[in-house]
Amino acid sequence: MMRALDLAEAVEAGDLTPSALVELCAEAIASQPFDIHAFAHLDLDGARTRAAHLQPKGGLYGLPVGVKDIIDTARMPTQFGSPLYKGYKPKADAPIVVMTEDADGILLGKTVTTEFAFLNPPPTLNPHDPAHTPGGSSSGSAAGVAAGLMPLAYGTQTGGSVIRPASFCGVAAIKPSYRLLPMTGVKPFAPLLDTLGVFGARVIDVAFGLAAVSGRALRVDGQDFGAPTFGVSRFAFAGAAESEAEAALTAAIRALEKAGAKVVEVDLPAVFAEAHAAHRIINNYEGAVSLSYEHRHGRDKLSPILRDLLDEGAAIPIEDYDEARGVAHRARKACFGVFEPIDALLTFSAPGGAPGVESTGNPQFNKLVTLLGLPAVNVPGYRSAEGLPVGVQVIAAFGEDHRALAAGAYLEAALAKS
Amino acid sequence: MMRALDLAEAVEAGDLTPSALVELCAEAIASQPFDIHAFAHLDLDGARTRAAHLQPKGGLYGLPVGVKDIIDTARMPTQFGSPLYKGYKPKADAPIVVMTEDADGILLGKTVTTEFAFLNPPPTLNPHDPAHTPGGSSSGSAAGVAAGLMPLAYGTQTGGSVIRPASFCGVAAIKPSYRLLPMTGVKPFAPLLDTLGVFGARVIDVAFGLAAVSGRALRVDGQDFGAPTFGVSRFAFAGAAESEAEAALTAAIRALEKAGAKVVEVDLPAVFAEAHAAHRIINNYEGAVSLSYEHRHGRDKLSPILRDLLDEGAAIPIEDYDEARGVAHRARKACFGVFEPIDALLTFSAPGGAPGVESTGNPQFNKLVTLLGLPAVNVPGYRSAEGLPVGVQVIAAFGEDHRALAAGAYLEAALAKS
Repeated sequence: MMRALDLAEAVEAGDLTPSALVELCAEAIASQPFDIHAFAHLDLDGARTRAAHLQPKGGLYGLPVGVKDIIDTARMPTQFGSPLYKGYKPKADAPIVVMTEDADGILLGKTVTTEFAFLNPPPTLNPHDPAHTPGGSSSGSAAGVAAGLMPLAYGTQTGGSVIRPASFCGVAAIKPSYRLLPMTGVKPFAPLLDTLGVFGARVIDVAFGLAAVSGRALRVDGQDFGAPTFGVSRFAFAGAAESEAEAALTAAIRALEKAGAKVVEVDLPAVFAEAHAAHRIINNYEGAVSLSYEHRHGRDKLSPILRDLLDEGAAIPIEDYDEARGVAHRARKACFGVFEPIDALLTFSAPGGAPGVESTGNPQFNKLVTLLGLPAVNVPGYRSAEGLPVGVQVIAAFGEDHRALAAGAYLEAALAKS
Repeated sequence: MMRALDLAEAVEAGDLTPSALVELCAEAIASQPFDIHAFAHLDLDGARTRAAHLQPKGGLYGLPVGVKDIIDTARMPTQFGSPLYKGYKPKADAPIVVMTEDADGILLGKTVTTEFAFLNPPPTLNPHDPAHTPGGSSSGSAAGVAAGLMPLAYGTQTGGSVIRPASFCGVAAIKPSYRLLPMTGVKPFAPLLDTLGVFGARVIDVAFGLAAVSGRALRVDGQDFGAPTFGVSRFAFAGAAESEAEAALTAAIRALEKAGAKVVEVDLPAVFAEAHAAHRIINNYEGAVSLSYEHRHGRDKLSPILRDLLDEGAAIPIEDYDEARGVAHRARKACFGVFEPIDALLTFSAPGGAPGVESTGNPQFNKLVTLLGLPAVNVPGYRSAEGLPVGVQVIAAFGEDHRALAAGAYLEAALAKS
């Protein structure tokens, strides 16, 4: 994989130019063992032109970045993974794209998204095994970073669309606190849930990327933040995990204890189970609202799984939706107590390794965290008996993105040593 | 003015057809004493075609509706009041537009907005006196309803863009609780603040319209909800009001007391003054983010007042923005105590009657309410010595939109009797 932090340091030191970096990506894309279909639109020419004129000083130092194809770009097609938007070119770049270029990042291309960031499997393949899904909906971003095609990429999470594909592909990722990154110009699915996130090789790379694009002091490399206290929960309300996910979690706990961190089992408040269930109401109701025009006027060009979801969402009584929002509000308030005695919560990223390509996997361990708006980091490192990556999820209190990243980096280092 | 509720009842009773209603609008538009420039795009033909085929059963019963021109419409240009979007046609209708048609409303046209819903005065005139502004940024919606060109119209409020023009134009309006209406497909300015609202002749008309489009039980006509308890505050942290605003507030208090309502002076928590100041940081920072593409690539086509705002917003340190969000969070929590002993808060809608056309007036008494996400109703009724309308603002706790509307309707009836 391409390590964003190391590459940026090489550019800063004058050992690497942005143009050379773009060529590294071009070569990696051209020499894939099999085409993972990471890109909905690749813009190597645009990237080369920009790299040639860039005197990188901004935080991204000329690093190429992949942009999930539900994020508006004025110079590249933005197709939302749907034939309804074939060839669509928005009038403006989304602010996250402008911020990327302001930070001297280079847009490499648009990465494959599932249709409107829902569940219909896209053509993207898991670089670890083409018989397996890379996960979704940020399929191309996770798979592309995992395959070493680019050092950083953006995704979005409404259910589990950042953490789950990161786990399946064996890359680090953060779904930051709700609204840490601006959602303007990102096709909405459920605005109360939709959150932009960042993929990279390691947690320190992801922290570097998020810090550079957001302008916040979020880097966690080169510093010792001490041993965090982790609370472990298996999110029983979300259903059972498979044995490989349990093994990954157990390996993480052992590595942490060996490294000297305190690990305690925690009981989550009862309202979290309610909130987990409320996610479905909010997701489906808001999805049917956000995509109401496409639902009314483009029905025959929607996948069956999305059409069914929109039909279901449109039938949810408004009272149920308002009640679900009330549950979410109560659950968010209950978070203060949860994180008072711990730095971070440790749980599954996904129910197991990547399933086959007929689905994008289950976001069951991500939905609550998205609804609560908490920062969550996927920490890679563990491999299943099949050789597939299985990550674990590190979660911190709202607004404590640095704490989530520091705890994630601590765990990643502990796993590497164990 | 056209009374939405009465017209809907006439359609339901079979005394009026949607086609006849559209012709009423067409005649009113054609026979204005002076052109108030309410419409950025008028679609009488589209409205006539739809009316001819409509068997109205949905809650809006064939009523024509004006749509502020920062709301996406696929069939009509959506120009955001900016030459940068001249002739722009979005790919999809915003959900609020789909919901309007689902409720059997008829789109009459796009109403004039200030440039990107900020402060640059548009060509729209106040129907009460063409030397005065109708207010902004929902200028065409407020003025058009006031001039009797249509029974209902949508606006948005980020600072005071619903309540202030309603006050200046002498119409009722509600800025509902944050997120009561979906913002997808509405050009963002400051997403933490942006809120869709509804204009109508009377508070009961506005409640009818909001209930019909949102599917919520928000009507307040034909029922007696009893005498509410009002808390009065003059929002001292927001600066002074002019004598005509004070006179309007005094008249409202007298009318309420005469009608038998309890009116008490209330002290607002100190954090509200901080939150009032924090609005500026959030508004300007997020404005610069939301319009970052236009700021970088269309600078020469922005008005000087917007360009200055975006320059200022882009220079706000991220720490200040994050701190302002923290203040907003604390102020929202403090609201529970404020509304515990009262049903509604009564204050100024605007600092006085409509100023001249060189500005759109000052949102000083609206910014805090927008930041807190509280439902606010403009209650018209008072006229200044100059003959200009001056409204008062009725505010309720978050999610208590029905209570705000009921209290507003109570006050409106009390004013009519006094």
